[in-house]
Amino acid sequence: MDGAFLALTPETLPARLGSLDELTGRIGADAGKWKVSEVGDGNLNLVFVVTGDRDAVIVKQALPYVRLVGEKWPLPLKRSFFEFHALTRQASRAPGMLPEVFYFDEAQALIVMEYLTPHVILRKAFIAGEQPPNAARDLGTFMARTLFLSSDLHMNARQRKMDLALFADNAELCDITENLVFSDPYYAAELNAHTSPQLDGLVAELRADVELKVEAQKLKQMFVTRAEALLHGDLHTGSVMVTADDTRVIDPEFAFYGPMAFDVGMLIANFWMAYFSQDGRDIGAEKRDQMRRYLLQSIEDIWRVFVGEFSMLWSSERKGILYQQCVLANGDDNAASEKALADLLRQLLSDALGFAGVEIHRRILGLAHNADFETIEDRDMRATCEARALRFGRAIILDRSRFGHLQEVNRLAAEFQNKVSS
Amino acid sequence: MDGAFLALTPETLPARLGSLDELTGRIGADAGKWKVSEVGDGNLNLVFVVTGDRDAVIVKQALPYVRLVGEKWPLPLKRSFFEFHALTRQASRAPGMLPEVFYFDEAQALIVMEYLTPHVILRKAFIAGEQPPNAARDLGTFMARTLFLSSDLHMNARQRKMDLALFADNAELCDITENLVFSDPYYAAELNAHTSPQLDGLVAELRADVELKVEAQKLKQMFVTRAEALLHGDLHTGSVMVTADDTRVIDPEFAFYGPMAFDVGMLIANFWMAYFSQDGRDIGAEKRDQMRRYLLQSIEDIWRVFVGEFSMLWSSERKGILYQQCVLANGDDNAASEKALADLLRQLLSDALGFAGVEIHRRILGLAHNADFETIEDRDMRATCEARALRFGRAIILDRSRFGHLQEVNRLAAEFQNKVSS
Repeated sequence: MDGAFLALTPETLPARLGSLDELTGRIGADAGKWKVSEVGDGNLNLVFVVTGDRDAVIVKQALPYVRLVGEKWPLPLKRSFFEFHALTRQASRAPGMLPEVFYFDEAQALIVMEYLTPHVILRKAFIAGEQPPNAARDLGTFMARTLFLSSDLHMNARQRKMDLALFADNAELCDITENLVFSDPYYAAELNAHTSPQLDGLVAELRADVELKVEAQKLKQMFVTRAEALLHGDLHTGSVMVTADDTRVIDPEFAFYGPMAFDVGMLIANFWMAYFSQDGRDIGAEKRDQMRRYLLQSIEDIWRVFVGEFSMLWSSERKGILYQQCVLANGDDNAASEKALADLLRQLLSDALGFAGVEIHRRILGLAHNADFETIEDRDMRATCEARALRFGRAIILDRSRFGHLQEVNRLAAEFQNKVSS
Repeated sequence: MDGAFLALTPETLPARLGSLDELTGRIGADAGKWKVSEVGDGNLNLVFVVTGDRDAVIVKQALPYVRLVGEKWPLPLKRSFFEFHALTRQASRAPGMLPEVFYFDEAQALIVMEYLTPHVILRKAFIAGEQPPNAARDLGTFMARTLFLSSDLHMNARQRKMDLALFADNAELCDITENLVFSDPYYAAELNAHTSPQLDGLVAELRADVELKVEAQKLKQMFVTRAEALLHGDLHTGSVMVTADDTRVIDPEFAFYGPMAFDVGMLIANFWMAYFSQDGRDIGAEKRDQMRRYLLQSIEDIWRVFVGEFSMLWSSERKGILYQQCVLANGDDNAASEKALADLLRQLLSDALGFAGVEIHRRILGLAHNADFETIEDRDMRATCEARALRFGRAIILDRSRFGHLQEVNRLAAEFQNKVSS
């Protein structure tokens, strides 16, 4: 396709993309027989499933504005460029864990990629009471590999700085996170919403909480200034698609160089929110208990697998300028290398807990709420679940440096869950 | 000047630059009458003083290699581009505290700038036993303004990210710091040198010190990943020129987005090294005592003025995305804003002490030594001074989070100074 950007429609797509070998060769040469349906349920983009007589693909196209809000909130098409470059980089670092990319058109802000089937969105699986067995393990691996291998622990320093510069231009999507995640939830910003009036008192209390606000703004500063690794940048359970034995991470258009702990914290926060939403799930007490155990165990599994994979990479792939073995080694003693790794992981866990608390807050107090809570139709019940999550979020932000293990944090989550009052 | 890069010589300079209005208009139209002398005493570049019948200017030209080492250590000419852009940005943030730039030629890696006279290099003033009265105050102001105003505390977020990307390309000069400052001193790297055999035992001890090496590598990680502000990047007392009432900061070719505390720490480290070098100065016991008091007081003054200016900017120029007043404010209460500032400054001091310790170590253990110690011809005396500095450096790296005030750190410095043994 040549020329200026033009949004696709199901009707125009076959004519506009029908001569692309990357599509015809894969799904079928006769574009006239393609079936096209628009399935985008995200907030930003068009997503088409295009099915030919041989196979199907996804066509994802950015729009020059936020789809959820409309043209009054413009957003650069270039986010598609960043998504493409993040997808390809992450695929080289965590092979098989992303949708395969077949074609990219920068001017049309368009990516043709693998149609994942029978995968479902992890968040929807949780809401349906499902317990995908490998998601936690795979996500721990995904994060360890994509974060470690994009950092100065592994990369050539100049190449890492060039990628830092490339993704620094993704400023408008960073701006969304900077505002919607880190600032808006902590004051009466225009786009905010919360379950009202039930949560009004607690919300006012949190927005007057000096310690909490200062810590949240320190976490924002970390998000903005700590260019450690190429983050996914929006790694919640809606960005993960699973089957019983396959896990794929999608939609990295928020990618930029930021703190490793942000991806980790946002992800586990969404497991905790699923946990706190269980009282609102109509699946029976026994199943709810099972789900709760599964979700907390998944968080521990994510971290355990992350630590294992990260430590393995630390031993075998630490080829960058940080924590060089030539500096740390002294004879055959590996003590300095082991201490450095332990300190780094402990700090990472602490920072991740901070980011997790902020993610929980913004999903209940800000613009972009989670289906986990939103699907609870009884507003009193929803508020009860949300209040527990809010208080838990505050606790892990303020006490984040106190925890050495996720088991301790999960015990705290269970305490908040078991408190009667909202 | 057109065409490919060609190094200037005193002989070719008038012919090659004689038609530049920026020079002729300033120093005199008849280039045949210019006097040119090469005065570069740094490690990297050519520096010419060009004097006409009206005035004089500095012509600074980069070479495609490290001057100190020769063509076997290539270094990009583009460092001149980064120096130019750092000089102009810093001049807008700290007006009057840099040499004025008259002309820049990117292809020739050449900057024409103000000839500072009767200024002297601050390090040389210290070695001569001089006590410039305003240097500390001015340097505190310089750092507060250039760091605060280049950060997301003040700048437009997209503009800050574009500057981050621009200076990320200064990778080769960052590489010098990454290696020579943070790694080489802590193992037996090829380019290292120290006062031997006197310091051999202590050097071996430090290079086997697990805790020290791990902390030094954490500081390297901070240097590499914390893109907080546009640093000078090489802010030692050799990068400062002073008269009794004027202070200018020169040579920002190492500029890049890094942690604010790095500039602060490197600068005060060089005051401490001047302090520990006093026993080797042949100026009499009374004058040495005066110099010691002056140098420690200067460190406290730098930090006091830095805190004052930074706090003033925090109140009046905090227009960026970090610590926004809309988030921190709750009614008329300023408690959150004050707590955030206090926490930030305390963290900055702690990090600065870590960087100061590393800077002290690399000046005694690494490639680039300081004239403060190198001018002490009695090697036993030099080693005694250096050993005290090394041990002090280790202490402030390991205990950096313990100190609330620089007075406490200065008391520690005096304790190391007053110990008899080396």
